[in-house]
Amino acid sequence: MTPLALTMGDPAGIGGELTLRAWQARAPCFFALDDPDRLRALARDLRLEVPVVEIAASSAAPVAYAQGVPVLPVRLAAPVRPGQPDGTNARPVIASIERATRLALAGEAGAVVTNPISKATLYGAGFGFPGHTEFLAALTGAPGQEVMMLASPMLRVVPVTVHVPLRRALETLSCERIAAVARTTHAALRDRFGLARPRFAVAGLNPHAGEGGALGREEMEVIEPAIAALRAEGLDVSGPWPPDTMFTEAARARYDAAICMYHDQALIPLKTLDMRNGVNVTLGLPIIRTSPDHGTAFDIAGKGVAEPDSLLAALRLAAELASRG
Amino acid sequence: MTPLALTMGDPAGIGGELTLRAWQARAPCFFALDDPDRLRALARDLRLEVPVVEIAASSAAPVAYAQGVPVLPVRLAAPVRPGQPDGTNARPVIASIERATRLALAGEAGAVVTNPISKATLYGAGFGFPGHTEFLAALTGAPGQEVMMLASPMLRVVPVTVHVPLRRALETLSCERIAAVARTTHAALRDRFGLARPRFAVAGLNPHAGEGGALGREEMEVIEPAIAALRAEGLDVSGPWPPDTMFTEAARARYDAAICMYHDQALIPLKTLDMRNGVNVTLGLPIIRTSPDHGTAFDIAGKGVAEPDSLLAALRLAAELASRG
Repeated sequence: MTPLALTMGDPAGIGGELTLRAWQARAPCFFALDDPDRLRALARDLRLEVPVVEIAASSAAPVAYAQGVPVLPVRLAAPVRPGQPDGTNARPVIASIERATRLALAGEAGAVVTNPISKATLYGAGFGFPGHTEFLAALTGAPGQEVMMLASPMLRVVPVTVHVPLRRALETLSCERIAAVARTTHAALRDRFGLARPRFAVAGLNPHAGEGGALGREEMEVIEPAIAALRAEGLDVSGPWPPDTMFTEAARARYDAAICMYHDQALIPLKTLDMRNGVNVTLGLPIIRTSPDHGTAFDIAGKGVAEPDSLLAALRLAAELASRG
Repeated sequence: MTPLALTMGDPAGIGGELTLRAWQARAPCFFALDDPDRLRALARDLRLEVPVVEIAASSAAPVAYAQGVPVLPVRLAAPVRPGQPDGTNARPVIASIERATRLALAGEAGAVVTNPISKATLYGAGFGFPGHTEFLAALTGAPGQEVMMLASPMLRVVPVTVHVPLRRALETLSCERIAAVARTTHAALRDRFGLARPRFAVAGLNPHAGEGGALGREEMEVIEPAIAALRAEGLDVSGPWPPDTMFTEAARARYDAAICMYHDQALIPLKTLDMRNGVNVTLGLPIIRTSPDHGTAFDIAGKGVAEPDSLLAALRLAAELASRG
């Protein structure tokens, strides 16, 4: 298998220690785009017996992986203090993402797995994208086509609107947007996840999915037309479902992914059911990209208490998707 | 213990069969305000060996309960066809609620437990309240003070806005309303639930609780001032918390009730965690009132497949609260 490219993330966050612990936990073969010296220092400080193996090309990763974490060097500009992000290092953080993406586009990495970044720190250094996802879309020539899916062993959710105020999410919700997100998800579940005929459940927006208009009209005016359009294209789509009962065990058995109207409608059930194993997957890009479902966790960085479960799940899912080609 | 008063609910829904099965499952002592003939017919049709014992006063319920379901008669106006609600019966449905409430106010019932009604059917017959809760508030002289809490063994949630379109929920959210709901909940958890110093977690409204204003300003402008006011009164209140991570097992251990900003923010985690044992409790009334966490379920009414778990939980919680006086 082509090795996975794992980015640095914010070096003051928990990314580095998770990278070391992912290797210890026998994650699928990856290489880090990181600063070998800072990873070595981190391993020493945290008493992790994880050798760091500098490599010159991703093709060296599979052999090196038997000895330690293979690292394609991306040198930091300033020393790292855990928990204290430093804009001086914004350039290497961004370079790590760019290089991972180029390697994936060139077929030299099976997928890009990203460690968490600090958006505020990058914005301060002039980074012009809302987050990883939009940056990767721009780097791969697919701006505007990116779709965020969160996946755990119990549930897959796709929010139609994502990192915007709830008020703004209501304003921007449209029939076209719902249908476009569902189409991208359909293609990805079929082509990358190997589901011949993925089943979708579309959430309502209002309590009880609007109760026939008494509790809101978006279901009738926006969501139902989107469902009708998708069905006319042959997709297996049901809904709009009352949001509060569509994530029970019995309901989840009836679909492969839930199309949700806003961030927390998707993320509350996902994280409530399984906080540790959620993975963020970007759909709609010409490359495979996954990431853990948490942030930089500056408050616990450098203490050796961060759990690598979500990064491990992200590496495993990336490997599974990459193996399907 | 003073027996609990259980209302009829819509006779075309699953209420009647749940009433019979609750007695079979040895629920705490209750009496039904229902039509004895229709309950007898239902027991016969569903082959449930549940005798129906007509009583003349609630005081007869504890003795009668050993023989069967004690029923204070409220006669129907038209024959019942399961699954087909009939406005002709609206008057006895409403009378059942009124009588139960009067008995609770008089101390002749320990609490009111309500079977589900069909609002559309009652509205058609001229019922002038949005639902049970507001009707009970009017009947008990506490209009506007009612607060809906949903409780399961895993979580208690209190939505600040309830049965309104999501767009309207955003418009009506206010510092005063959040604080008023939290105060009512605090008094109820202390006085009725026996929690000496209840701990509250207040949810944010926006993704990541607004991320310092980047993803919405309601946290800073509305929710934080409410929290500050409640703390100044000595309440144990934390937040605003990112909605997607505040319902994990670890997070739930840190509070007794979550104050939520809208219906589905409260109901999604509650029902996703435990669909069967959720109970609706009305706080802020001079009487105790609980109800199951589901509707009339016309689609399965009369088939004998409806599960009484939620009604049982509602009866048990009502008995527990009533025993504290």
